[in-house]
Amino acid sequence: MSDLVSRTSAQFPHVPRFEAHFQSFEEAGDRAAGAARLAALRAALAARGVQGYVVPRADAHQNEYVPPCEERLAYLTGFTGSAGLCVVLEAEAALFVDGRYTLQAPAQVDTDAFRVVPLAETTPEAWIETHLPKGATLAFDPWRTTLDGRRKLADAVAAAGGILVALEEDPLADQWTDRPAPPAAPIRLRDLALAGEAAADKVARVQAALTQEKLDLLLISDPHAVAWLFNIRGMDVAHTPIPLAWALVGAAGRPVLFTVPGQIDPAVAAALKPVADLLPRAALEGTLAQLAAGATVRLDQATAPVQLASVVERAGGTVSKGADPIALLKAVKNEAEIAGMRAAHLIDGVALARFLHWFDTVAPGGLTEIDMVEALETFRRAAGRLTDVSFPTISGAGPNGAIVHYRVTRATNRALGADELFLLDSGAQYDEGTTDVTRTLATGTPSEAMRHHYTLVLKGHLAVGRAVFPEGTSGAQIDPFARQYLWAEGLDFDHGTGHGVGAGLSVHEGPARISKLGHVPLKAGMILSNEPGFYRTGAYGIRIETLVLVEPRHPGGDRPSLGFETLTLAPYERRLIETGLLSAAERAQIDAYHRIVRDKVGPLLDPETRAWLDAATAPLT
Amino acid sequence: MSDLVSRTSAQFPHVPRFEAHFQSFEEAGDRAAGAARLAALRAALAARGVQGYVVPRADAHQNEYVPPCEERLAYLTGFTGSAGLCVVLEAEAALFVDGRYTLQAPAQVDTDAFRVVPLAETTPEAWIETHLPKGATLAFDPWRTTLDGRRKLADAVAAAGGILVALEEDPLADQWTDRPAPPAAPIRLRDLALAGEAAADKVARVQAALTQEKLDLLLISDPHAVAWLFNIRGMDVAHTPIPLAWALVGAAGRPVLFTVPGQIDPAVAAALKPVADLLPRAALEGTLAQLAAGATVRLDQATAPVQLASVVERAGGTVSKGADPIALLKAVKNEAEIAGMRAAHLIDGVALARFLHWFDTVAPGGLTEIDMVEALETFRRAAGRLTDVSFPTISGAGPNGAIVHYRVTRATNRALGADELFLLDSGAQYDEGTTDVTRTLATGTPSEAMRHHYTLVLKGHLAVGRAVFPEGTSGAQIDPFARQYLWAEGLDFDHGTGHGVGAGLSVHEGPARISKLGHVPLKAGMILSNEPGFYRTGAYGIRIETLVLVEPRHPGGDRPSLGFETLTLAPYERRLIETGLLSAAERAQIDAYHRIVRDKVGPLLDPETRAWLDAATAPLT
Repeated sequence: MSDLVSRTSAQFPHVPRFEAHFQSFEEAGDRAAGAARLAALRAALAARGVQGYVVPRADAHQNEYVPPCEERLAYLTGFTGSAGLCVVLEAEAALFVDGRYTLQAPAQVDTDAFRVVPLAETTPEAWIETHLPKGATLAFDPWRTTLDGRRKLADAVAAAGGILVALEEDPLADQWTDRPAPPAAPIRLRDLALAGEAAADKVARVQAALTQEKLDLLLISDPHAVAWLFNIRGMDVAHTPIPLAWALVGAAGRPVLFTVPGQIDPAVAAALKPVADLLPRAALEGTLAQLAAGATVRLDQATAPVQLASVVERAGGTVSKGADPIALLKAVKNEAEIAGMRAAHLIDGVALARFLHWFDTVAPGGLTEIDMVEALETFRRAAGRLTDVSFPTISGAGPNGAIVHYRVTRATNRALGADELFLLDSGAQYDEGTTDVTRTLATGTPSEAMRHHYTLVLKGHLAVGRAVFPEGTSGAQIDPFARQYLWAEGLDFDHGTGHGVGAGLSVHEGPARISKLGHVPLKAGMILSNEPGFYRTGAYGIRIETLVLVEPRHPGGDRPSLGFETLTLAPYERRLIETGLLSAAERAQIDAYHRIVRDKVGPLLDPETRAWLDAATAPLT
Repeated sequence: MSDLVSRTSAQFPHVPRFEAHFQSFEEAGDRAAGAARLAALRAALAARGVQGYVVPRADAHQNEYVPPCEERLAYLTGFTGSAGLCVVLEAEAALFVDGRYTLQAPAQVDTDAFRVVPLAETTPEAWIETHLPKGATLAFDPWRTTLDGRRKLADAVAAAGGILVALEEDPLADQWTDRPAPPAAPIRLRDLALAGEAAADKVARVQAALTQEKLDLLLISDPHAVAWLFNIRGMDVAHTPIPLAWALVGAAGRPVLFTVPGQIDPAVAAALKPVADLLPRAALEGTLAQLAAGATVRLDQATAPVQLASVVERAGGTVSKGADPIALLKAVKNEAEIAGMRAAHLIDGVALARFLHWFDTVAPGGLTEIDMVEALETFRRAAGRLTDVSFPTISGAGPNGAIVHYRVTRATNRALGADELFLLDSGAQYDEGTTDVTRTLATGTPSEAMRHHYTLVLKGHLAVGRAVFPEGTSGAQIDPFARQYLWAEGLDFDHGTGHGVGAGLSVHEGPARISKLGHVPLKAGMILSNEPGFYRTGAYGIRIETLVLVEPRHPGGDRPSLGFETLTLAPYERRLIETGLLSAAERAQIDAYHRIVRDKVGPLLDPETRAWLDAATAPLT
């Protein structure tokens, strides 16, 4: 923390010293160890008679955030990015990373041992096809590979003339002696007042969906779905309050919930027992085998591991690969969940107003990206309700703002300069709900180009926000509204416009999204982000994000229609708005939103911050 | 033709008596014969030991327009719609029709013999699943069924516990003694000046595409692709100048073109022989078997018949089901094709101006939908260049305009009333190119609602027309622009916004389209329709359609971009434009388009029509 922050935080005596509890700025990778670990892995593979092995950055649930004990890829290679995959062959090893990590990966891994391959150049499958020797055996981890993943590997291995085998035991186990223990954090019940629907009622709805799809059994491999179904929460991974649990739900009968012994205390067990049988996680395979005999079993194509598909097949069951029906049920929030999300956004709105006021009051010169993360988290903690940040805050000053998935580290940390843009994409977990908000701020005097581009992004953001559309419309059909003003000037952004957000769950939730690929129809009760952007490499990044609730609209006409209500409560950056580019309707839309922010958040602020908010939300014209 | 037309056409002495040469208003179905024909078919099936049979409305190329000898469904059932499928079982027979034909089909078929089933209620596959007796054998026609079609049937039959077999010989052959002969119309060469690329060069491009996709051989089952590749045209079916030809193109070596003997005269043969071997159509299966041995053969998933997939497999070849690479090559028009399409639209623009002038001059009271079709075709023929209409004109007065795929018959023919809307969707085939245009016209004084809805549709049409978007954008991403103003009022239309159009080929051409399902990126040189609509059942229909050419745009910015140039040259109906609903930019866009129409078409008109056009295209404000 810089001295400046210490000094200025003295002006905010009601908040503690600025610190980040929920986010690290270190890079933990062990670059030097890579070559030796690779050699040991190869020896372990040779002992098992296989010539190659695939190490994905994945746990058995395909979670976005994985526990430390599942950081196999980081252990082996030193690479700590949130996505990646290493293919180890006898003569070479390739680490595949996406565009976010093409600079970070070579800095973190021993490039004599591992060749870093950008996914944009070659997929793992194409690489295997040309690099796996004919007749060689490639092994994969059946717990950390989905059915689709295996199919892709199988095609590639077949094209190479090799053999693909599942290796149930972990070939890293012998050498990874200081592997952290698996998490087993206490599981807590989610209040019915927040969940809005009893677990038994949810089970009944899931069972009805199974019956309708002619399924006998559902394996719930997505722990977010388990948490939703049984109204439980945990803390087995960062940023998302889930236990790493599994469940089995038959079309009839009692569901089975699998957890680590000790995670469930007697009181929680007493509450769950009327709804489900509770078994230790070690009983999962055996129980699945028992229930799968002769049954059609739905395995979630996005998360279910190959290992459990094999269990179903060996037991004489039929695997039905498809969507977990809970994904759609969970995405449609009920009244209590919506109320919780509103409450979370009000708490968050207060913290955001205080942060933005602080940002405006303290000249940001000299302050760094990490200072901003610490300050924002501290303002959020001040309300006493923050349980986590919903993802590592993206705090990008100047050119770092142009890196879409930028995560600040001590090595990259940058001071905010004068006349720069600062992109801050952050979210919070409260018991009430989950938030995700991006604001792009200006220091000093922003340039014409900055204001122009900000306003184009804002116009797209507003177009999505006011869209009205018939039921059945998908996010893919909404997405172009966000881009049209950029397109007209030969500009665009290379990410989706929005993702689903869970209610006190994951900040990234399917199945609906606002993107070219978002073909799931939007439904009233879904909550998504609305976050168009524009990125000028080496100069600045702009993104404006609010969460929106899908709700019925009644515009007349003959189609039942939907629209969005904005949940996020934070003013736009008026120093960046070029009002001349806005239509009268757009200006009115901004003013109306700002009035809501002022009316809802203002009364909860101290007088100084409230005065700031009044100014920040005053009518544009 | 009404007397009024005779009288008024005297005012247009330069055109002959109004008549339609290229479109029939009769319904040819033989309702009374259905029961006997069905009985005879069942006897023929019993003699072959099968209990069911599928009769699709399809020929071996899955053509939109089929020759009379392929009208099996109409022969059997009496139903003459352009799409449908009959499943004949021992105890019952079901005729599946889509929403266009749910009224027509019951009127045309003997409903004691055939149960008419709307596709929206039950698919043939779902029906088979529940109606085919366990153990029964269902036969299908392997020449008139695609691989995807067979797969769907196979799944349904398997679910029913039955057996699916291909029946090569036609079980209708014995009874259908007056079946028309297969077409064998002369094949003509398309001038290089119109084609813009020599057949040999096209073959080289197709062979490069095959090599890139690691394919040894391409079966061209789409006759439009054959016509494009060899720069030939025919007249084997209505409305599209194609011969029903097949071709085989290897990744190397000489292609083979299969036609009916006598279709190719010596001069055409001499021109084709440097490019391809010419064989009779009867040699197709044998030649394919020869070339397929050990080869990977691309079969077009949209058109290739099961029969030829079986030939490939029996010959020891591998079927690669996928897109015919010609579809995309053909969709991107070269400079000569674009010039031809422009010329066709100029010819068409003159005919449209004369028709519209006539429509405005002659009070339409008393005139009928058929009168309109006849008048329009006559104005088109007047230039001496019309070879066909590109599809049966949709001429919908008042409530008939709300029937999206309405085709007027003597039975449905309706006189235009006063203060009504009239929807006219038509197209022409000229040697130069193909047109497709819809205008919605008003008689008398249109209502507020009519003007309001027309203007909403026009706003969507204009939004598509002025859209600028980066390369890689698909039609699915453009489609919402057409709907946004209707959506805002709880309205929509239930068809795509646009389809691809061939250059002197089919008026409906893939692979790109502007619709929710149009995921193929648009490319410069593609030509598509832009035709949003609005339909008030029982009252009126509105559709506004022009063809647009995709071309590069240079808006600045950093993305290579595309936009549309409108090819169609016909004024909008200004009596229906509510200028108060238009922005200044929209009014300017209309004025600019009208100026182009006036400048291009005006000089080719007689003074009276030109004066009318000047008024019809005068600035709105």
